[in-house]
Amino acid sequence: MRKVLIIGIGAGNPDYVTMQAVKALNEADVFFIPDKGTEKAALRELRTEICERFIKEKSYRLVDVKPPRRATDFTDYKSNVETWHGEIEASYERLLMEELADGECGAFLVWGDPALYDSTLRIIEKIRSKAGFALEYDVIPGISAVQALAARHHIALNRIGESVHITTGRKLAEGFPDNAGSVVVLLDGDQAFKHVAGEDLDIYWGAYLGTEEEVLIAGKLSEVMGDIETIRTQRRQQNGWIMDTYLLRKPEA
Amino acid sequence: MRKVLIIGIGAGNPDYVTMQAVKALNEADVFFIPDKGTEKAALRELRTEICERFIKEKSYRLVDVKPPRRATDFTDYKSNVETWHGEIEASYERLLMEELADGECGAFLVWGDPALYDSTLRIIEKIRSKAGFALEYDVIPGISAVQALAARHHIALNRIGESVHITTGRKLAEGFPDNAGSVVVLLDGDQAFKHVAGEDLDIYWGAYLGTEEEVLIAGKLSEVMGDIETIRTQRRQQNGWIMDTYLLRKPEA
Repeated sequence: MRKVLIIGIGAGNPDYVTMQAVKALNEADVFFIPDKGTEKAALRELRTEICERFIKEKSYRLVDVKPPRRATDFTDYKSNVETWHGEIEASYERLLMEELADGECGAFLVWGDPALYDSTLRIIEKIRSKAGFALEYDVIPGISAVQALAARHHIALNRIGESVHITTGRKLAEGFPDNAGSVVVLLDGDQAFKHVAGEDLDIYWGAYLGTEEEVLIAGKLSEVMGDIETIRTQRRQQNGWIMDTYLLRKPEA
Repeated sequence: MRKVLIIGIGAGNPDYVTMQAVKALNEADVFFIPDKGTEKAALRELRTEICERFIKEKSYRLVDVKPPRRATDFTDYKSNVETWHGEIEASYERLLMEELADGECGAFLVWGDPALYDSTLRIIEKIRSKAGFALEYDVIPGISAVQALAARHHIALNRIGESVHITTGRKLAEGFPDNAGSVVVLLDGDQAFKHVAGEDLDIYWGAYLGTEEEVLIAGKLSEVMGDIETIRTQRRQQNGWIMDTYLLRKPEA
């Protein structure tokens, strides 16, 4: 039996790591460290930093993983993502087979929470369901960027008794959901808030949440969106990458 | 200056506590422990257990808080909650004034994440904005029941590229949201899933998440809802209280 731990390490701040994650870190023999190129070098560093800081009881090895890249030329978003996940699946299956001995425990460190817009869990479940070897896995939740955003802005995600809608930039571009008091947007590379700029909305925006580079901006969307775009462009150039998220909501009546 | 820390302690499992929360616990002079009657005695115990387990560097005192109870007879839900919050606000303001010396740090330990369906943050912000004394506060995110649910069921909250809608039992009773792949329901005392039982939905249900009493049920809503109702009633009687949450979604096409 091979075991895999999918460990949420929180969004940016190593102090977001839970006691449960620390225990899991100390259980793994092998850490699979995805290398997504220079853009994400900072994230790679955070992962190795977390291993060094929290693993006290055990020797372990790091295995570099070069995940297949998603095709940038496609017509259907979903099938594009599914093809990509299939390629990752095949590559991860080989990896678990070759790098993990029977009886050993491997770990994937997931930025934020493995349950939110991350594919590791889905890929490992697919491998488990059809791999030619016995595999079990466990999932350790982590503090997501959504929660870091709310905590750092000192706001609740929900209005009293109302819903919270968590969505993607791609979906927001189709229109502002009308059935939720608050809308959180993730995976937005195109500043999709521009598509709803005509509506009377407050925005709470954050980038590099939990890290020393953290930037927070809050205000009326129409008034601060220019600042957000400027700062986003600047910081992205300076750092070579950016991860940001935001909450939109109609002003309190 | 008085300081207040609003510390998310995670949903049930003391190992959900983050390193950041441990640091915050060791910063507080006073912990305000709400006593909501026998029903929530188990939650009160978890709070004191967390203090005992994680505070090593500091002496501290526990102050029992008897929050005003919400009126059960009302016409408008929102104004009922607002009145109740106003009463809690007045009582917490007295508490911070009387129990916290100038320069001291007090803490509220919030089950799950303070940003999700918890009023502490809103109440402290209202007190800060108009109290007759200087007050600052900080918010420490915690693993929410939503995340514990997903981790324990080994599922992602979102379908690929789709939205996640987090709502209440009250809202779900008005109808199933049509713009999200996945709907998470919290604060449901009436098993509101019965209102959508006619739809083809999968349910992932969990109670006492993260604790030794944890119960998980998953399956087609129409097939397992009877089991959920039976187990929910049994366990509620046995334990004197229950906290549960669930995710609903349409089966994968």
